[in-house]
Amino acid sequence: MIILMQFGATQAQIDAVCDVIRQQEVEPLVLPGEDRLAIGIPAALTADQRDHIEAALSTLAGVSKITQTSRPYKLASLEFHREKTTVEVKGVQIGPGHFVVMGGPCSVESYDQFYVSAKHVKAAGARIVRGGAFKPRTSPYSFQGLAEEGLKIMKQVGDDLGLVTISEVMSGDMVGLVATYVDILQIGARSMQNFPLLIEAAKSGKPVFLKRSPSATIDEFLLAAEYVLSYGNKNVILCERGIMPLDRSYTRNTLDLSSVPVLKEHTHLPVIVDPSHGTGVSKYVAPMAKAAMMAGADGLMIEMHPDPSAALSDGSQSLTPEQFAALMDDLRSLSGYCGLKM
Amino acid sequence: MIILMQFGATQAQIDAVCDVIRQQEVEPLVLPGEDRLAIGIPAALTADQRDHIEAALSTLAGVSKITQTSRPYKLASLEFHREKTTVEVKGVQIGPGHFVVMGGPCSVESYDQFYVSAKHVKAAGARIVRGGAFKPRTSPYSFQGLAEEGLKIMKQVGDDLGLVTISEVMSGDMVGLVATYVDILQIGARSMQNFPLLIEAAKSGKPVFLKRSPSATIDEFLLAAEYVLSYGNKNVILCERGIMPLDRSYTRNTLDLSSVPVLKEHTHLPVIVDPSHGTGVSKYVAPMAKAAMMAGADGLMIEMHPDPSAALSDGSQSLTPEQFAALMDDLRSLSGYCGLKM
Amino acid sequence: MIILMQFGATQAQIDAVCDVIRQQEVEPLVLPGEDRLAIGIPAALTADQRDHIEAALSTLAGVSKITQTSRPYKLASLEFHREKTTVEVKGVQIGPGHFVVMGGPCSVESYDQFYVSAKHVKAAGARIVRGGAFKPRTSPYSFQGLAEEGLKIMKQVGDDLGLVTISEVMSGDMVGLVATYVDILQIGARSMQNFPLLIEAAKSGKPVFLKRSPSATIDEFLLAAEYVLSYGNKNVILCERGIMPLDRSYTRNTLDLSSVPVLKEHTHLPVIVDPSHGTGVSKYVAPMAKAAMMAGADGLMIEMHPDPSAALSDGSQSLTPEQFAALMDDLRSLSGYCGLKM
Amino acid sequence: MIILMQFGATQAQIDAVCDVIRQQEVEPLVLPGEDRLAIGIPAALTADQRDHIEAALSTLAGVSKITQTSRPYKLASLEFHREKTTVEVKGVQIGPGHFVVMGGPCSVESYDQFYVSAKHVKAAGARIVRGGAFKPRTSPYSFQGLAEEGLKIMKQVGDDLGLVTISEVMSGDMVGLVATYVDILQIGARSMQNFPLLIEAAKSGKPVFLKRSPSATIDEFLLAAEYVLSYGNKNVILCERGIMPLDRSYTRNTLDLSSVPVLKEHTHLPVIVDPSHGTGVSKYVAPMAKAAMMAGADGLMIEMHPDPSAALSDGSQSLTPEQFAALMDDLRSLSGYCGLKM
Repeated sequence: MIILMQFGATQAQIDAVCDVIRQQEVEPLVLPGEDRLAIGIPAALTADQRDHIEAALSTLAGVSKITQTSRPYKLASLEFHREKTTVEVKGVQIGPGHFVVMGGPCSVESYDQFYVSAKHVKAAGARIVRGGAFKPRTSPYSFQGLAEEGLKIMKQVGDDLGLVTISEVMSGDMVGLVATYVDILQIGARSMQNFPLLIEAAKSGKPVFLKRSPSATIDEFLLAAEYVLSYGNKNVILCERGIMPLDRSYTRNTLDLSSVPVLKEHTHLPVIVDPSHGTGVSKYVAPMAKAAMMAGADGLMIEMHPDPSAALSDGSQSLTPEQFAALMDDLRSLSGYCGLKM
Repeated sequence: MIILMQFGATQAQIDAVCDVIRQQEVEPLVLPGEDRLAIGIPAALTADQRDHIEAALSTLAGVSKITQTSRPYKLASLEFHREKTTVEVKGVQIGPGHFVVMGGPCSVESYDQFYVSAKHVKAAGARIVRGGAFKPRTSPYSFQGLAEEGLKIMKQVGDDLGLVTISEVMSGDMVGLVATYVDILQIGARSMQNFPLLIEAAKSGKPVFLKRSPSATIDEFLLAAEYVLSYGNKNVILCERGIMPLDRSYTRNTLDLSSVPVLKEHTHLPVIVDPSHGTGVSKYVAPMAKAAMMAGADGLMIEMHPDPSAALSDGSQSLTPEQFAALMDDLRSLSGYCGLKM
Repeated sequence: MIILMQFGATQAQIDAVCDVIRQQEVEPLVLPGEDRLAIGIPAALTADQRDHIEAALSTLAGVSKITQTSRPYKLASLEFHREKTTVEVKGVQIGPGHFVVMGGPCSVESYDQFYVSAKHVKAAGARIVRGGAFKPRTSPYSFQGLAEEGLKIMKQVGDDLGLVTISEVMSGDMVGLVATYVDILQIGARSMQNFPLLIEAAKSGKPVFLKRSPSATIDEFLLAAEYVLSYGNKNVILCERGIMPLDRSYTRNTLDLSSVPVLKEHTHLPVIVDPSHGTGVSKYVAPMAKAAMMAGADGLMIEMHPDPSAALSDGSQSLTPEQFAALMDDLRSLSGYCGLKM
Repeated sequence: MIILMQFGATQAQIDAVCDVIRQQEVEPLVLPGEDRLAIGIPAALTADQRDHIEAALSTLAGVSKITQTSRPYKLASLEFHREKTTVEVKGVQIGPGHFVVMGGPCSVESYDQFYVSAKHVKAAGARIVRGGAFKPRTSPYSFQGLAEEGLKIMKQVGDDLGLVTISEVMSGDMVGLVATYVDILQIGARSMQNFPLLIEAAKSGKPVFLKRSPSATIDEFLLAAEYVLSYGNKNVILCERGIMPLDRSYTRNTLDLSSVPVLKEHTHLPVIVDPSHGTGVSKYVAPMAKAAMMAGADGLMIEMHPDPSAALSDGSQSLTPEQFAALMDDLRSLSGYCGLKM
């Protein structure tokens, strides 16, 4: 942390700032400048120390600006954990050198619908099938999912076809139930800062697939991952799925693909991109999927439905099985170019 | 809903769109235009009908643009419920004609700290005391609250001083516990679309204080309220607390005060403003609090701490008791000007 | 500026950073930390020095994060210019202690329309009349203004009624023309970073009314003002008129009222609020106008048209003369409460 | 346009709306609904008709919501101009089937610096060289460019090496000067809605390279292009260069790659991506450049400097000649995969 004093700050004001820092048992460093003086804190502060210093400084005169100089996450940081993480689930590797695709319908609607979907996923060469059993819907009047019945279907189909399964869990008290049936726990974008849920998901021991909130900064996203990591669960997979759009009239969100190289530089965790939610429009999914691979993503989550026009949710962003298979073919040929196994 | 066809759309394409609409048992209305034709749906669609039509149309050729013409909330709408709602809690009225202030520290830190805070709140003329027992913190390393111990302190202090209490509940399975101790259940901004929590809070029968997510549109905010209302709980209080900032270097959020007249026009529910989180800077709280009253708010939630520089959380946005009392005096004199009881 | 080195940065990497700084003839200060080292630059850098250092550091290994610790504006800063600025135009004072209202139609449409508008402005007690002669319109097919003819009308009406006039100038080569006719030059939000225009407006010697771009941070806004100030023109008036909206379906922009106390703390320049463009909806203008006064604004710019439903531009955000007069009455009674002359 | 009436709107209110529409000589179509009635306007309105109707409706009671059903641009629209545009400049084709790269330094700093830069551009296989002579800088204290001297250098170097040149023009009165020296006129992001400049650039007859403003919606972007097209200049090239960032601490802007497939669907104009400004960080340029090709872009604009650490502007986002050449090699091998000539 560095505190910039106002032009003309008095010695008493400077001393008061130094006292606040010393109360946290850290020795401040005074940096004389040409027209303004700055005070540095040459130590790694705990979150509580930082909070206390900020609060105390906010009441002092003569302070112009407080700047955080460090990054707030540690376990998620590539600086402190130099080896890239590979999450392995039933033989499927999610991490560097591989390119994994998670496909399937937005919602599990019936055994038949999900079985057919999963067969298409498998036939196209993907090894993870997705589907929602508990659906977070903006409107209380929209279809809310099949709940436990949907989970049972997922497990059955996953076992029958030898596919890894992933499904969303919406609250901490449901983690146990969902973890009984599925292989990877998905934390939805709206739940990224549902801290009780993050903690329970972490404790389950299952891999946690964490979607970025549409309003989350990179630091907030990595701090949410830090929650899971700090409870001892190392298998965290990050997912970029679009941030708040500047323009809602053409796409549902703004897929922030530059977050991929940013995340790859700063964290060791795998990064997946979801172009289905990221754009909300099925015809934009394929170009953005290929773009995501080039941006350095470790894989994709893609919505595919046997009959998008009859889907109970998110039909307008779902690929048909044919479109999905064609995209998988394209990705495979590009993956060779990128040196990725697929 | 209205569907704009592309310039030069064929009769077959037009027929296909009409068929999709008729499958939902609604008769489409074709609107000939000068260069493009539009197809209207002259009926109130259910959410599922709308989802189906959108999904089906997304796969059809010749469609240029789909526009929702109606508002998606109903129970929350002033159009369908012409009487403004007043939420009454232990004799305190939150709604038109009154201006209510909820004051208190970010976190309940100890009995003494909370008792002193609450005495200041009461002395300044406010009747509702706030305090956090379960704290949603961005970093896992920050103070997380006293949990149930904090709730017990709140209840004790509320009873001792005759103040209404409000505290945040972070997950559905905790609603029962929190509802045992406090008078109003607060749903935090990060939980605005935590649907299991909204449903449990609704069922508790307690008034629900719903904060707007920093990325929520007005429709998304009112649909979250609609969840609570649709489970039979009519006592919903809305709270504007700042949206995602364009510029994070001077304020923590952008307090969206124009949401106040927008909400007052479209919903019957009371609207409270939180300038403490809305700005994140204590010196901006008083001007924005007074501005909120002028914008038409029904009240305020304000952070006040006996010693902000020693607060365990959010000290930099907390008023001192003296600042809080001075603000209450200012608000009281303005309330007369606005014809509000306070 | 402070440079955070990566965890485990080598001595050679640290030396390389110090060398870059020394090339700008500044002596770096090394700040040892617990797990990461930081390097401070204890001097006020010129913009070019800063640019050079940033560019050079971007190519070096071992650098984790570069943070600006100072504010980039100087002439606009209250720290370096402790006296608040009052801009005086023909006896009208814009600055502390006063509350000034600029009213009038979006566009000058004809002599009669503008004369009637200006009479209403004057009758309601305002002393500055606004009107557009050159209109920046998003669509090339919308009404573009009367051009010089409009300016002549403004001058005539301003002289006849003894009102100060303000109108927008859209390009540097038009400054001379517009300055011949009007008292205050308005720089529109879309032109905030039209630097050739800022420079010409500065040189004209006329007061410059500078609107904030909808995407501008506070620093970018004050740097635009700095352009004008740096060319020797001290009469700069800032105007908040709404930033990019999160939600375009209820308001045209998001009026960022908290920018008012932020600006008042950091600059000596007067701050005006435009709730007409800020909301885009006439019924929200009055509450937001009063809120702006409470937030600490030095005045308002408000669109009023004799017959909004017949306006050639922006009719949906224009007040009627009656609404304008009623708002002026409200503001006058509030101004007494705030200790402002009006 | 479609007007949704409020629930319970009276016949008189409905008639008043219809009258407003009829005043524009269009016959309204009343759409009865289950609980609310809508009124459609089955005609292509002019911009002025639309403005008038909106203004008039804003003053009427009983109106719930006004929705635009059509797109506001026409000449830029792929619907009305089914053939994709190829802009040809001195034998270089910008448009479908080709992938063009514009490389070079942010600023022209000297003959030697620009000549060396251009040689590297050419050696790497690119055919268009960029460089700024008039620099729009946020701070008045930053390097502002060599002005006409810079243009002369560009022309000389372009002629010597047989490269097409592109440079920014910042105001309408400078168009003539800049057009004398360079082949393509660049309109910078801050000037996207500088309408006098757009008009002059259009009239020059030179190809116009139009950068998207960081706050522009797709419609606003295409309407800016519409200005140029409506003055008879068909050679407009669009450039996505990053929108306002949610998070300014890792990238300078948010490169909105999904705008590429959106634009390709809705306009016939070529679309170029600028990952240098889009990210502001040289190490993110290559992945985002390749991602842009996959997203469907027709080319790239990339900053390259012989010695980024000595650049007078934007050094931190400039590639070295070696990085640029390597990227060009990568792009060439990918272009074969995409069926693009390069």
